[in-house]
Amino acid sequence: MQRKVFFTPGPAHLYPTFEKHLQTALDEQIGSISHRSKQFKAIYQYTVEQLRTLLAIPPQSAILFTGSATEIWERVLQSCVEKESFHLVNGAFSKRFYEFAAELGKKAIKQEAPFGQGFNTGQIHIPHSAELVCLTHNETSSGVSMPVEAMHQLKKDNPDTLFVVDIVSSAPYPALDYSLIDSSFFSVQKGFGMPAGLGVWIVNEKCLQKAESLKAKGLQIGTYHSLPSLWSKYTAYETPATPNVLSIYLLGKIAEDMNREGIASIRKQTEEKAALLYSFLEKSKLASVAVQNPQHRSQTVVVADVKQSSAEYLQDIAKTGNVVGSGYGSYKDKQIRIANFPANTTAQVEALIQVMQQLEA
Amino acid sequence: MQRKVFFTPGPAHLYPTFEKHLQTALDEQIGSISHRSKQFKAIYQYTVEQLRTLLAIPPQSAILFTGSATEIWERVLQSCVEKESFHLVNGAFSKRFYEFAAELGKKAIKQEAPFGQGFNTGQIHIPHSAELVCLTHNETSSGVSMPVEAMHQLKKDNPDTLFVVDIVSSAPYPALDYSLIDSSFFSVQKGFGMPAGLGVWIVNEKCLQKAESLKAKGLQIGTYHSLPSLWSKYTAYETPATPNVLSIYLLGKIAEDMNREGIASIRKQTEEKAALLYSFLEKSKLASVAVQNPQHRSQTVVVADVKQSSAEYLQDIAKTGNVVGSGYGSYKDKQIRIANFPANTTAQVEALIQVMQQLEA
Repeated sequence: MQRKVFFTPGPAHLYPTFEKHLQTALDEQIGSISHRSKQFKAIYQYTVEQLRTLLAIPPQSAILFTGSATEIWERVLQSCVEKESFHLVNGAFSKRFYEFAAELGKKAIKQEAPFGQGFNTGQIHIPHSAELVCLTHNETSSGVSMPVEAMHQLKKDNPDTLFVVDIVSSAPYPALDYSLIDSSFFSVQKGFGMPAGLGVWIVNEKCLQKAESLKAKGLQIGTYHSLPSLWSKYTAYETPATPNVLSIYLLGKIAEDMNREGIASIRKQTEEKAALLYSFLEKSKLASVAVQNPQHRSQTVVVADVKQSSAEYLQDIAKTGNVVGSGYGSYKDKQIRIANFPANTTAQVEALIQVMQQLEA
Repeated sequence: MQRKVFFTPGPAHLYPTFEKHLQTALDEQIGSISHRSKQFKAIYQYTVEQLRTLLAIPPQSAILFTGSATEIWERVLQSCVEKESFHLVNGAFSKRFYEFAAELGKKAIKQEAPFGQGFNTGQIHIPHSAELVCLTHNETSSGVSMPVEAMHQLKKDNPDTLFVVDIVSSAPYPALDYSLIDSSFFSVQKGFGMPAGLGVWIVNEKCLQKAESLKAKGLQIGTYHSLPSLWSKYTAYETPATPNVLSIYLLGKIAEDMNREGIASIRKQTEEKAALLYSFLEKSKLASVAVQNPQHRSQTVVVADVKQSSAEYLQDIAKTGNVVGSGYGSYKDKQIRIANFPANTTAQVEALIQVMQQLEA
C-alpha cells in the first residue's frame, strides 16, 4: 500500500532514515538492554553529543529525558519557580503552559496577544518579581513564531531572570543562544520525525541552582523527575527511572543524520519550503496566510485561513495521499495547519502545493 | 547475527510477536497519526478492551497511560493521599514508592521486612489514619512476592481504605480481584515484552472521587496527569498530552495475542517454568534459592544467592547467548535475578537451565 505523506504538526511524518535505524535497533536488541548498563550510558552520551553539535548546546547545560514535552512544562515550573512565573500567551499551548503554573499553586502572570498575533519586544513588560519567563517560540495552534533575536533581547534586558523557551514544534530550526537562554525543551514527534513518547529538556546550572535552593527551603519540587534528581543521574548518563531507551537511541541516530546534512542546510531548506508554502497561499483562492505580520509567521507550522469548510478541503487533499492538519480548537474548521518539518522534503512540499493548486482550478 | 535471549527483569526479552506488530504499525503509519483522531481513539479503546479481558478489569475501572510506572507512584500518591499513606517495604522498589510519599509532603508510614523476606497477613498493622495502602506484589529487587489472597484479605480487613498494588514486574501473572483492589499499575517492558516508555494505570471510581475531593479542598494534585485530568480524557479514549501512541497500539496487539493463548494457560506456564528454575536452584552447587519461604517466592523474578562472584557467573552464562540479571544494589555481586516473563518460552528456560547445569560440571 502506498504510504501517506503527513504534513500534520505532530505527530508528523517520520524522518526518512527512521525505519532503517529502528531495524538496526531491533537487530541490536536495544529494546531489551538494561537502562543501568554501559551500553545504555553510551547511547545516552551519544545522543547528548549529537544534540549538542546540532543545537550548539554548551557542555555546561544538561540534556535530560522525560515522557513528553508536556511533562517538562510541569517539571520546569516545579523546579524553577517558588512564587511567580511570567508567560507570553498567544494560543492554546502557551496558554496551557500558563495554566499549569496556576494549577501548581504559583502566581502566574501573563501578557496576552490575540490568536494569530505575536509580540513586539518593546511592548513586553516583565515584572521584576517574576522568577521564570516562559516563552513559546512557535505557537503550534496559531502558527505564530517569536523571532529568536527578540527572545535573546528580552533575556538581555532581564539578565537576572531565568528564561525557558518552548521549542516543541520548531526544534531544530531556532538558533537559540544557550549562553543566554537558560532552558528549552521539545518532543520528538515534530521536527525530529519520530513517534511520540519522549521529551527532551535542555537546562543550565542556574536552573539547577534555583531548584536546589527551593528544595533546601523545604518546598516540594517533585520526586524522580525533579531537576536535581534528573541532573544527578545525567552526570553518569543515567536516568532516575527506566526511560524510553529505544527513542533515546533513535533520536541520537536522527540527530547524527541531521548533523551530517548540517544544521545550516536544514534551516535554509526549512525557510525555502516555508517560502514556497506562503507564496502559494498569498495567491490562493481557497486559502490565505493566517498570520498577518510576516515577522511572526512560523517557518515550521504554516497556518492558513480557509474560505470554506476546512474539513472538505482537507478531505480533497487527503484523496491524493497527503495529510494536512486541521485548525486548532475553535479554528478547527476555519483554518488548516501545514507542518514544514525536516522530514518533509522539498519535493513533497512542491507536490502538495501542486495538489492544492489543482483544487483551485 | 544470532540474537540473545534476555532473562533480565526489565527491560526484558521482547514478546515473540512484537516485531510482527511493529512492522504492521509502520505499514499503517501509526507513528504519524494524530492523538486526537478517530483512529487513535479506536486504538486506545481496543487496547483497553484487550487488557480488560486479560486481567478481568471491570468496566467501572479506568485504564490510563503515563510515561512509566515510576510516574504512577507519584501520580497515585498526589491524587489519592491528602495526609497519610501506608507502605509494605521489603526491597528497593517498595522503599522508593514509600520515599516518594515523603518527598510529596505526605506522612508516609511503613512496615518493613528484611530483604528477601515477605509479609504474613496476621503481622500487618495498617493504621486507621492511612488513606492509601501501597502494596508491592512482586519486589523486583529481591524476588519476594506477596500472595494475591493475602492482598485480598488485607483489603477485606480494611474495606474503607484505598488499596493500590504495584504489579510492575509480575503483570499479567497475578489474578487480582478488581472488585476489591482499587488500583494497580505496571510498565510494559517486563511481563508484556515491549521496549520501555509506557506506564499503565488501572484505577477505580473511589480513587477518582478521592482525587476530586482533594482538588475541591484546594490541594495540589498535579496538572495534566492528575487522576481527574487523565480520567476525563479517558472517557473519550483520549489522553491529556500526546502519549506513546505506538506503544499503546503494540500493547493492545500483544494483549490480544495473550488473550488468544488464554490467561489461565499463561499463568500455568509461568508457574511451570518457575518450578523448573527453583527445582534446578535447589540442587545447584553454584547458586541457591534466595527467598526462604516458598509462599513468598516470585513466579516472575527468580532470585538466587551465588556462592562466588555473580559477575563471573553471569559472564559464563552470557557466552552462550543468554542474558541473566545481576543482583540489585548491594546484592549486585551476591545474587542473580532470572526473569520468567511470558516472552520467555519453556524451551528457552530449559536451555538456560542446561547451560547452568553445564557450568556446574
